[in-house]
Amino acid sequence: MRLSPRHPRYRSLLVRARLAEAHRSGLVVPEGLIAQGRGEAFDYLLGEGTIPSARRAEATAARWLLAAQRPVVSVNGNVAALAAPEIARLARAVPGLGVEVNLFHRTPSRARRVERSLRRAGVRRVLGVRPTARIPGLPSDRAWVDAEGILVADVCLVPLEDGDRTQALRALGKRVIAIDLNPLSRTSRSADLPIVDELTRALAAIAAEARRLRRVGAKPRLTRFDSARSLEQALFAIRRGLSRAAARSPPSRARR
Amino acid sequence: MRLSPRHPRYRSLLVRARLAEAHRSGLVVPEGLIAQGRGEAFDYLLGEGTIPSARRAEATAARWLLAAQRPVVSVNGNVAALAAPEIARLARAVPGLGVEVNLFHRTPSRARRVERSLRRAGVRRVLGVRPTARIPGLPSDRAWVDAEGILVADVCLVPLEDGDRTQALRALGKRVIAIDLNPLSRTSRSADLPIVDELTRALAAIAAEARRLRRVGAKPRLTRFDSARSLEQALFAIRRGLSRAAARSPPSRARR
Repeated sequence: MRLSPRHPRYRSLLVRARLAEAHRSGLVVPEGLIAQGRGEAFDYLLGEGTIPSARRAEATAARWLLAAQRPVVSVNGNVAALAAPEIARLARAVPGLGVEVNLFHRTPSRARRVERSLRRAGVRRVLGVRPTARIPGLPSDRAWVDAEGILVADVCLVPLEDGDRTQALRALGKRVIAIDLNPLSRTSRSADLPIVDELTRALAAIAAEARRLRRVGAKPRLTRFDSARSLEQALFAIRRGLSRAAARSPPSRARR
Repeated sequence: MRLSPRHPRYRSLLVRARLAEAHRSGLVVPEGLIAQGRGEAFDYLLGEGTIPSARRAEATAARWLLAAQRPVVSVNGNVAALAAPEIARLARAVPGLGVEVNLFHRTPSRARRVERSLRRAGVRRVLGVRPTARIPGLPSDRAWVDAEGILVADVCLVPLEDGDRTQALRALGKRVIAIDLNPLSRTSRSADLPIVDELTRALAAIAAEARRLRRVGAKPRLTRFDSARSLEQALFAIRRGLSRAAARSPPSRARR
C-alpha cells in the first residue's frame, strides 16, 4: 500500500508499515505488533504529539543520563525496528551510554538481528548479545542481562519495557526511566521517571536536551522527579483528548 | 508461555495468544495484530466487560438482524481467528443470516483459510470466497463482495471493520451494525448501530438475544437507535475507567 504524506495520519501509518516490515524480517515478534497497537491507541488519545509533562520528563531524563555513573539504554525488537537511528544519536549525545540488547522473547538469531540494526545505525558497541548475568526474581529469558551493562548500571532507560522487568530493576536499586505511552501501565506506574510519549519523539527530545546541556557546560545532577504528578498530567491530557476527538467527529445522524 | 487461569488478565492474554497463533498460520496479517492491540487498549479502559450502553446496542442488533430481509455478517481474518464459533452460533440464531468472507488484505489462500475456519466451526455456507461484485467508491481489494451477500444485504453486521468500507456500505443505503472497541473510530462514528464491546462478548450477546426473541415469538422491527447517545455513554465509561485504573494502581513513591 502506498502512503501519501498528505494523509492526516501519515506518520503513524508509516511507523506501522515499518513495524510490519520488521516483523516479516524476524526482528519483531507478533506480540510486539500487538503492543504497538496498544501504544497507538494511547498516542491517538494524546493527540499524537508530545505533551508538556512529557517534555519536562524528557529534559529530566537527559539530566539523569548525563549525571549517571553507568547509564544504559535497553533495546528490544520493537525499539530496534522503530528507532535504531534515534538510539545511535542518543549514544552520541550521552558519553558512556551503554546500549544493551534486551529481548522478552530471546533467541540468539533475534539478538543478532537487533545488534545488526543498531550497528547499521551507527552504534559502535552493543551489549547483551550473548548475555552474561541474570536479574534475580525474573523467569527464564527475561532475566538475561550483560554483566557490564544493565547489571551494573545505576540509571536504566527502558523504552517499551514490561512491568515485571521494570519492577525487578527498581528492586535492584536502579533508577528506571521508562518510555511508555500508557500512563496506567505497570511500567509507567513503577518507573522512577515515566515518559508518556511516543518512542522516537521521546528519544529525539532526550538526545537534543543532552546535547544542549553539554553545549552550555551544565553539571547535571540526579534531580528529584514527581512521577505521580507527571502521570496525573498525562491522564488529564488523555481525558481532554477523548473530548476533543469526540467533538471533531460527530456521529452520523440516525435514520427515521 | 503457559498462561495461568488465575492471572488477572487471563482472558485477554488468551485472546492475544490465540491471535498470535492464527498469525503464524497465515490467517491473520501483521496489520491485524496491530489492530488487535488498539482494541485491547480500549477494552482495558472499558474495564474488559460489557457496558450497559453496549448491552442495549447488542439487543437492538439482534432485533435488526431478525427484522432484516437479507442480513449478512462480514468476516475478516481477525474475526475468523477470534470468533469463528461465535459466528456459527449467530448464524444458527438468525435464520437466513449470510456469512461472508471480507478481507482488507485479500489473497485467494487467505480467503480459503477464513472459509475453512468458519466451516470447521459449523457454518454451512460461506459467501465471498470467490467474490463476484464490487462496492462502488472503494479501492481494489477492499471493494470485492458477493453478489448474493453484502451487495444485496439490507442489514450488514461488520465486526472490526475499517472506516472506508463502513462509510461505503452506508452510502449504498444499507443499515450498518459495527462492533468496534473504539467509540471514536470512523467505523463507530459512521455506523447506524455501533456496538462498543469486545468481539466475542458482543457476538455471544447478540446471538443470545436473537434466540430469546424467537423463543418468546417476538416480531422484531427495524427500530430507531440513537447512536450518538450510545457513543457518548461509551466515552463516559472510558473516562470513568481511566480514573478507576489510576486509583487502583498508585504510582511508585519518588526517591529522596
